[in-house]
Amino acid sequence: MSRNTDVVERLIAGWEKRDVDAIMRCFTEDATYVNVPLEPVHEGTEAIRAAVEGFLSMGDEIEFIVHHTSENPETGVVMNERTDRFLIRGDWMEAPVAGVFELREGRICAWRDYFDASEFTRFQAQLES
Amino acid sequence: MSRNTDVVERLIAGWEKRDVDAIMRCFTEDATYVNVPLEPVHEGTEAIRAAVEGFLSMGDEIEFIVHHTSENPETGVVMNERTDRFLIRGDWMEAPVAGVFELREGRICAWRDYFDASEFTRFQAQLES
Repeated sequence: MSRNTDVVERLIAGWEKRDVDAIMRCFTEDATYVNVPLEPVHEGTEAIRAAVEGFLSMGDEIEFIVHHTSENPETGVVMNERTDRFLIRGDWMEAPVAGVFELREGRICAWRDYFDASEFTRFQAQLES
Repeated sequence: MSRNTDVVERLIAGWEKRDVDAIMRCFTEDATYVNVPLEPVHEGTEAIRAAVEGFLSMGDEIEFIVHHTSENPETGVVMNERTDRFLIRGDWMEAPVAGVFELREGRICAWRDYFDASEFTRFQAQLES
């Protein structure tokens, strides 16, 4: 396993442990994080931490099941195909996701997740039910 | 460039040339193709050809701009991050997409595209305008 894929796996382990500090150690100071259909782009560690805390608060348990992962040896870009699962009010909500991660010196400087925004709406409805 | 990434690049070149036969040569007979938020899963070359022809008919010109691509040397899975552009009634419509490609013996046996379904609704509205 290459170094950059290893960093992305640490990021995912951090989500599953709900460990914000472990998650944040994976990012550069100037990193950007965006859920492509939702916007906005979260820029910098302060904004990313707030976004991460928001998502962590959605689920009583969180699982990111990685189906496939690949890394470009020249650019260092890592991509993965996942099912992200959130336990919300006793029900597991799942969303299919594809993630793109750009890294610099062993840290993620850009993270873009691709998925259908209606999945997020469905999660929110469950949260408010 | 590895062999599987090369096959995916041939697929994309086929779309841009609007060459259905070139596109279909990239797939195994039993391939599956799905736009994850839209469904259904198109199974087999006949169903995929019909789906491809449907999408090709949407745009007078088509561009798939690949921003990043990566391949897993063990599984052979290729992923890319793209902006797919369709010229519809004189306007370029764009959608951000992440694609996942599983290959077998140099042909694509599974293709899954991740994007926001509302983009597709926007394309259809432009087609009907």
